[in-house]
Amino acid sequence: MAQAHSFSSADLDHITAAAVVAAEKAGAVIKKAFHLPKSVIHKGKVDLVTETDKECEALIFGLLKEQYPDHKYIGEEDTAAQGSAPQLTSAPTWMIDPIDGTTNFVHRFPFVCVSIALVANFQPVVAVVFNPIMEELFTAQRGQGAKLNGQPIRVSDCNDLSSALTATELGTARDSKTFAAVTHRLAVAAEATQSIRCLGSCALDMCCVACGRLDAMYEVGFGGCWDCAAGALIVEEAGGQLLDPSGAPFELMSRRVLATNAHLGAAAAQVLAACPEGPLEPGPPKK
Amino acid sequence: MAQAHSFSSADLDHITAAAVVAAEKAGAVIKKAFHLPKSVIHKGKVDLVTETDKECEALIFGLLKEQYPDHKYIGEEDTAAQGSAPQLTSAPTWMIDPIDGTTNFVHRFPFVCVSIALVANFQPVVAVVFNPIMEELFTAQRGQGAKLNGQPIRVSDCNDLSSALTATELGTARDSKTFAAVTHRLAVAAEATQSIRCLGSCALDMCCVACGRLDAMYEVGFGGCWDCAAGALIVEEAGGQLLDPSGAPFELMSRRVLATNAHLGAAAAQVLAACPEGPLEPGPPKK
Repeated sequence: MAQAHSFSSADLDHITAAAVVAAEKAGAVIKKAFHLPKSVIHKGKVDLVTETDKECEALIFGLLKEQYPDHKYIGEEDTAAQGSAPQLTSAPTWMIDPIDGTTNFVHRFPFVCVSIALVANFQPVVAVVFNPIMEELFTAQRGQGAKLNGQPIRVSDCNDLSSALTATELGTARDSKTFAAVTHRLAVAAEATQSIRCLGSCALDMCCVACGRLDAMYEVGFGGCWDCAAGALIVEEAGGQLLDPSGAPFELMSRRVLATNAHLGAAAAQVLAACPEGPLEPGPPKK
Repeated sequence: MAQAHSFSSADLDHITAAAVVAAEKAGAVIKKAFHLPKSVIHKGKVDLVTETDKECEALIFGLLKEQYPDHKYIGEEDTAAQGSAPQLTSAPTWMIDPIDGTTNFVHRFPFVCVSIALVANFQPVVAVVFNPIMEELFTAQRGQGAKLNGQPIRVSDCNDLSSALTATELGTARDSKTFAAVTHRLAVAAEATQSIRCLGSCALDMCCVACGRLDAMYEVGFGGCWDCAAGALIVEEAGGQLLDPSGAPFELMSRRVLATNAHLGAAAAQVLAACPEGPLEPGPPKK
């Protein structure tokens, strides 16, 4: 049976160009707000963080829906309104995070990005992650490799977990049992690797693995598929591995990810699989 | 009694200029090595990391000793050779870290810097921290404020610890009791604040507090005074607070630091003081 939704090379180029334009326009809005005095961001009747997030979301969804009205769209806001992410189908579906790294944005810490992916037949086919503050644009098309500012990127070649530089995030859950699971996992990962970085953006952590600045990253229980869909394709196309932290296959909708270079996936999963899961964390995929 | 060592404003300008030249020359060496393929860095008879560190150290010490032959000098290498840092006197003493963030440098993660401070009468009087990858030059003179690339910087105005973005590092000790103390402290700090960042450079963590990207940072048991001397002056001159994590006064030679904006020092110290110290950590100053 023919695949329901296939894209020609010209289609993918067109889609990538549209996603880059949307990311750059949203990036300009983020950058402008980022450099305002903090007092402006937090004072006044309207919260500028929420405002910027909404403005970027409207801008990106508007631009893309105009060009691809028949595609489906998944974002944080719709999902929050519905209480859960919609069921993913094989239809072309955009997964969009207008600002990944919101806490960083609030504090003007420069790891902030726009994340846009087009998923078809349950796989990301186009990915754009743009950090407008550091002016880094990561892009990928399925089968065509990954790029940073137009230059091809590759994962690192570190093949020894104990020498690996690894990123994770502490997330937002602070109930004592879930938080104990998060911090225990971080301590175990730190002991098994060279060191841990916590940068505050799932999408940028993944891009750092893709360009070899980090050897591995994992996160359990982030916001949704929009945080990892673009990063997942960028990692794959840069030659990296994607897994569930339990060692099972990676699932786009699971809110769980382990991304490594080409060597470290199994070893990292073995370490993480031995850690207990927190009660409020999304569990590993059922076998 | 008159102070043994005082500097005129013109002296301080001259010293700052000399330190900036040294940092920029070393920065160029770091940047060149940073962008080489990793295979070049790790292969061959000579380790390029050690080579770059040594080359930068020789360059900085050489330039400064030529101009200030009567000053004293403290760096990591001398200290390692002697087994402990020399006793600090009131004499003008340079504290120099040619590459702070060595693990980041090895992995090409862009938080890497040169840190140079001149200390006189037990206080830093000139500070330069230069990240050559991100092209950020932090400078301060005692009483003259702190700057980033020539523009004055200020700490954040966050006055609620639970909203604070805080940095710390996991350090290098991995004996189980010390590491348990480090990770317990991180978990406690994460619960008390908005979130934790781990960036891999003590000096840059302090500069991030100084320019308001972070609200607080702490670290217990880093390498030596060269990691924090420049950052300490930059934080102070940007309007921040310096303390020992126990709440005692900050001591330059203690290998312990808590740096915050103008509001959060006491509240952060209260949280950290309640955490047990690890057996291999340098303890708080004696009262």
